[in-house]
Amino acid sequence: MQLSQRITHITGGGSDGWDVFYKARRMIADGEAVIELTIGEHDIRTDPIILGAMDDSARGGHTGYAMVPGTQDLREAVAERIQERTVVPTTYKNILITPGGQAGLFASHVATCNAGDRALYIDPYYATYPGTIRGVGAEPVVVRTHAEDAFQPRAEDIAAEAAKGAASLLINSPNNPTGTVYSAETLEGIAAVCREHDLWLISDEVYDTQVWEGEHISPRSLQDMSERTLVVGSMSKSHAMTGSRVGWVCGPEAAIEHLVNLATHTTYGVAGFIQDAAVFALDQGPDLEEKIAEPFRRRRQIAREILAEQNTVGLIPAQGAMYLMLDVRATGLSGEDFANSLLDTHKIATMPGESFGTAAHGHVRVAMTVDDERFAKALKTLVDHAQTLAE
Amino acid sequence: MQLSQRITHITGGGSDGWDVFYKARRMIADGEAVIELTIGEHDIRTDPIILGAMDDSARGGHTGYAMVPGTQDLREAVAERIQERTVVPTTYKNILITPGGQAGLFASHVATCNAGDRALYIDPYYATYPGTIRGVGAEPVVVRTHAEDAFQPRAEDIAAEAAKGAASLLINSPNNPTGTVYSAETLEGIAAVCREHDLWLISDEVYDTQVWEGEHISPRSLQDMSERTLVVGSMSKSHAMTGSRVGWVCGPEAAIEHLVNLATHTTYGVAGFIQDAAVFALDQGPDLEEKIAEPFRRRRQIAREILAEQNTVGLIPAQGAMYLMLDVRATGLSGEDFANSLLDTHKIATMPGESFGTAAHGHVRVAMTVDDERFAKALKTLVDHAQTLAE
Ligand SMILES: Cc1ncc(COP(=O)(O)O)c(C=O)c1O
Ligand SMILES: Cc1ncc(COP(=O)(O)O)c(C=O)c1O
Repeated sequence: MQLSQRITHITGGGSDGWDVFYKARRMIADGEAVIELTIGEHDIRTDPIILGAMDDSARGGHTGYAMVPGTQDLREAVAERIQERTVVPTTYKNILITPGGQAGLFASHVATCNAGDRALYIDPYYATYPGTIRGVGAEPVVVRTHAEDAFQPRAEDIAAEAAKGAASLLINSPNNPTGTVYSAETLEGIAAVCREHDLWLISDEVYDTQVWEGEHISPRSLQDMSERTLVVGSMSKSHAMTGSRVGWVCGPEAAIEHLVNLATHTTYGVAGFIQDAAVFALDQGPDLEEKIAEPFRRRRQIAREILAEQNTVGLIPAQGAMYLMLDVRATGLSGEDFANSLLDTHKIATMPGESFGTAAHGHVRVAMTVDDERFAKALKTLVDHAQTLAE
Repeated sequence: MQLSQRITHITGGGSDGWDVFYKARRMIADGEAVIELTIGEHDIRTDPIILGAMDDSARGGHTGYAMVPGTQDLREAVAERIQERTVVPTTYKNILITPGGQAGLFASHVATCNAGDRALYIDPYYATYPGTIRGVGAEPVVVRTHAEDAFQPRAEDIAAEAAKGAASLLINSPNNPTGTVYSAETLEGIAAVCREHDLWLISDEVYDTQVWEGEHISPRSLQDMSERTLVVGSMSKSHAMTGSRVGWVCGPEAAIEHLVNLATHTTYGVAGFIQDAAVFALDQGPDLEEKIAEPFRRRRQIAREILAEQNTVGLIPAQGAMYLMLDVRATGLSGEDFANSLLDTHKIATMPGESFGTAAHGHVRVAMTVDDERFAKALKTLVDHAQTLAE
């Protein structure tokens, strides 16, 4: 039986660079002691106090269908959090609760792209981006960034693609995989392109609590941008609630109304007890967020100290998110070959830059998601390995 | 800012019959004592033993990203349950776990329909059906059933639409809103049409544990149908877990592989602790399912006794699901006018048949989701009201 074009073409093209990831998985399954620096997930579990709130809600009876747009409490808590950070008036009517940030990315593209529309995104990119765009029947169009710019996108490159016609632009700051936090200048440039070419801006801000340098600016706060921006957020990274699948889209009221319609037909809401747990978690305020971000801040510092002692492996500034993007071009190898060789020789798994597009070739992404000691050891080994190769 | 065609057209046409639902909601919000016979949800909460299993799983550490296709345990438990009921060999590879049955309906249509394809569904229908089809960019095409057939679809009517070209047919047995359980003959006829016109059959079986008369037959079990059938299931109705948002799609392995790809880009899996709770619930076997179905079985009997004493209000057989479809045409009113008048006069809220399409005009749907005593009283009042109107 024939399946639809759309579903059979979601994952297109090569699996460049993912082979090493699967190889590492197989080695682990075979019982080998691989250090995995591949995974975008905390090495801690969801805090028991949050799980307690969830259990209280469930046993308290919040086990029936919740309202499709989200509970009033969670919509308000998210609106308040966003208003605090953007100074843009934001109410629950600007918020749709989704089962995770990924669902928000998908819904945002359904909302903004007609079938066949060109939808822009930035390379290097989070793995699901092109498939998400293809999944809504739009055409993914990549805008490359450059290592020498620390992967900050150039407004003129976006404008060049936008000029050919496009419905939307998807950005992500703090960025996975590069660790880059978009500067005010970058964001002003992006906003200008969106206004000029009438683009929707889909702003993936799931790492907004993980900023080590500079400042997270949401484009929702920029001049005339709140009316054309959909912000995608999530409890996954900020509150170590990856498995709970709860996030949101924040946008203009009219867009949210239609997104609620869509949600009625795609997911029919999010578990009420999970939403109550999210409200509880948000109520803990910045302290809890800071506590959850802290290990990454610490490990980034460890990495900087290790990397400062040598010149072979370059570090993209690592201003935010739980990743380091390391330049290994001095070894003469591609990111993929380097990652393979590191895995084979030292049982350390990293993600080749090539698995995130073409812009980060010759780089590897290191997730700071193992304990400090193993992290430091692995990073030293990585550096030694690069030096051996470079000699 | 312009939104996509698709999202702005999900809910099309009139809101026939929903006005009375919203009026009832407003009356309740204003503090009036309305008896709501409108809601497709149990009057009990999720069983605390299931919530206990969920809490154990969460505190046990299952709070990180679960595998996108679903946990091995839940996929296997669902496969086993389906194999038992269909005798068709079924493994975890035939199963994708989704955040609820609605997500399964959406994903199934993405998988089977290209943009612009005609997708058939049966009238009367569950409220989300046409919007789900429009939400994937396909064209909803309705096939009407008839009260005199107890709303069993006629194969020739489906064939007539299929002959004009269609990608899929969506059916639902036991049926919401009619309470009809499709007979073996109906299903054989449907299967023949699907084979002849090369249709995918999307079989919504979320009420499969609520069968009061006859037998639930899954079309997956019919000759050569497992290769062209996607079964949508859910823990919502069978285990009173509506709020937990957990369901599945069961289909051919190749289809499930692609559906997993889609899930990676739409929802990124289902909370692991919810899946563990679902495994626990399924492990309780048919006893728990029967316990949850029992109140509806009982109330259906109460209704039959009340209705047997008169001839004004007709009862569609009510072979399954938690609803009764009542024929009020003897009153001379439309379903909508009758429901309005019943709400205004007696503060009893029912759903007009017209809110489920055109086939059930002159009917009202009664959800058996209030306690026996209030249910009996409300039904007697409804009958009296109809008799007064019919005089
Ligand atoms: C950039 C980015 N966006 C979105 C997501 C999705 O997060 P979730 O669906 O868990 O909220 C991730 C997860 O890794 C991510 O890295
Ligand atoms: C016929 C039918 N299908 C699917 C659903 C969706 O159920 P869920 O998404 O809760 O599994 C419902 C809910 O009322 C329904 O009545």
